[in-house]
Amino acid sequence: MTVYPECVELTDVCLRDGLQNLETPIPTEEKIVLAEKLIEAGFNSMELCSFVSPKWIPQMADAANVVETVKKLDKAHKVRFIALIPNLKGMERAVASGVDAVTYVISVSERHNINNVNRSCAESFAQIKELKKIQPQEMTLCLALATSFGCPYGENISPECVLNAVRTGLEFGADEIMLADTIGAANPAMIERVLEAVLKFLPPDRLKLHLHDTRGLAMANYLVAAQMGIYRFEASAGGLGGCPYAPGATGNAASEDLNCMFTEMGIKTGVNQEKLLKAVAYIDSILPGCTTSSNWKRISGAPMRISCGA
Amino acid sequence: MTVYPECVELTDVCLRDGLQNLETPIPTEEKIVLAEKLIEAGFNSMELCSFVSPKWIPQMADAANVVETVKKLDKAHKVRFIALIPNLKGMERAVASGVDAVTYVISVSERHNINNVNRSCAESFAQIKELKKIQPQEMTLCLALATSFGCPYGENISPECVLNAVRTGLEFGADEIMLADTIGAANPAMIERVLEAVLKFLPPDRLKLHLHDTRGLAMANYLVAAQMGIYRFEASAGGLGGCPYAPGATGNAASEDLNCMFTEMGIKTGVNQEKLLKAVAYIDSILPGCTTSSNWKRISGAPMRISCGA
Repeated sequence: MTVYPECVELTDVCLRDGLQNLETPIPTEEKIVLAEKLIEAGFNSMELCSFVSPKWIPQMADAANVVETVKKLDKAHKVRFIALIPNLKGMERAVASGVDAVTYVISVSERHNINNVNRSCAESFAQIKELKKIQPQEMTLCLALATSFGCPYGENISPECVLNAVRTGLEFGADEIMLADTIGAANPAMIERVLEAVLKFLPPDRLKLHLHDTRGLAMANYLVAAQMGIYRFEASAGGLGGCPYAPGATGNAASEDLNCMFTEMGIKTGVNQEKLLKAVAYIDSILPGCTTSSNWKRISGAPMRISCGA
Repeated sequence: MTVYPECVELTDVCLRDGLQNLETPIPTEEKIVLAEKLIEAGFNSMELCSFVSPKWIPQMADAANVVETVKKLDKAHKVRFIALIPNLKGMERAVASGVDAVTYVISVSERHNINNVNRSCAESFAQIKELKKIQPQEMTLCLALATSFGCPYGENISPECVLNAVRTGLEFGADEIMLADTIGAANPAMIERVLEAVLKFLPPDRLKLHLHDTRGLAMANYLVAAQMGIYRFEASAGGLGGCPYAPGATGNAASEDLNCMFTEMGIKTGVNQEKLLKAVAYIDSILPGCTTSSNWKRISGAPMRISCGA
């Protein structure tokens, strides 16, 4: 039988990545209720917000408030709270908020980086040094490498490109690396090629994977990564976010799909699926039609009868 | 690197499994147009209809007409046309129609078989002998084992149960076996356990897999099967069908997802993805909101920009 990790670490990114592209800001109170439900479900790692200018992303204007309130909900201090930061200003706010970790994004694709953060990759890497200067010792700095499995502008992303970015990031002081499939372009063979290269320089405990389900391949891709010993994965409750196009269309992989797959395979996740589905149901109630959860609602119904079918 | 088959055989089941649960019959002319588009896309195996009583499934009342017309479209005689048959009467009609293969369904779950076809499993198996009596030499009889990975009524389905059904089916004269995940309950570890048992008695060329995407795990499940040397898979264009609940909800795995995964991994399928997506677009035009194809429509658009996100 294929060997898989005994347990995996799932980070839910719904509160940041799931919400950030929504035009209408969600009230802070609703974010707090959602966070409570996700903590109750058992996630011990959650991305809560991004410390980005409210001019760019009004949805995240309440970031400091969200972190402060949610931290109080985690009475057992067992959850690792993460915030995304785009720059030094964001890092300052993240430090002040007391999050456990920050995610800083650089694209492997030069063109995507320029379009995304208006800087060259070299400028973005150089900024890690500035971030390090004010990083508290107990805080983790995760470098997320966007477009690790494909660039929307057609730039060729080889395993060597990814490996170079990983090595540069580590040299500049990133504590851990996250490979992100920003446009959902990965396939299982590509995942294997890229991870094979990266694992030569980085042990699995310092490596995370953030995959999108744009073409329905996220679970197959996560599975192959798990076969290679990767065990730290990001996903979004309800499959919310990750896609600036249509509401309800598939961008981020759904935490409930990922938790289902691993749990049913006998791999420990620490996340209770029924409670997670309650969190997803809550998202459905405040953001109707925005999740990919129709399947889950359906199979909780009565047994189905399929006439003469297989 | 993990070894995969060099090429896989994809059977599209949209015209039978995709349509059969729709209440309003699709005009024969539209079925023919769809068949033409699927042939044009490159499928060399297609399930066209079921020869079932029109009283049960009015949608399939034109089965003989569909087969006769579609066969003429396949000028190069390269497509294997399949029909589902529930009983001897269906087999007689299938033989008269000249399809290349028939699929006969028995559930591994006794209770599901009784609910599905109103017979015990033993009665269903015994009927294979009757079918064999009129089976032309050039026709293939495929036994589809429904509920091979889970029963909607809670009956325990172990790998041994599946293996017993496989052996019984072969003893009664089935030419090939298809394992069906009728309710989308499979996970990659279960797929591996069941296939490991079955492959001891049956080579991959006589084994097919028909998986549902109810919980988003179909691609991961197909992938694991391919890692074990399985290469004959069924799926439905647009993910149509396989679920009697909500339109557009996920039942059958989508042929375009499966073709994407294998093609992008460098595994030959013979199916052209762009042409397949044209067939799916046609389904969308005649059955709005019934497919799972929103993703594919989306990624054919302009490059996306994700602000400060990974």
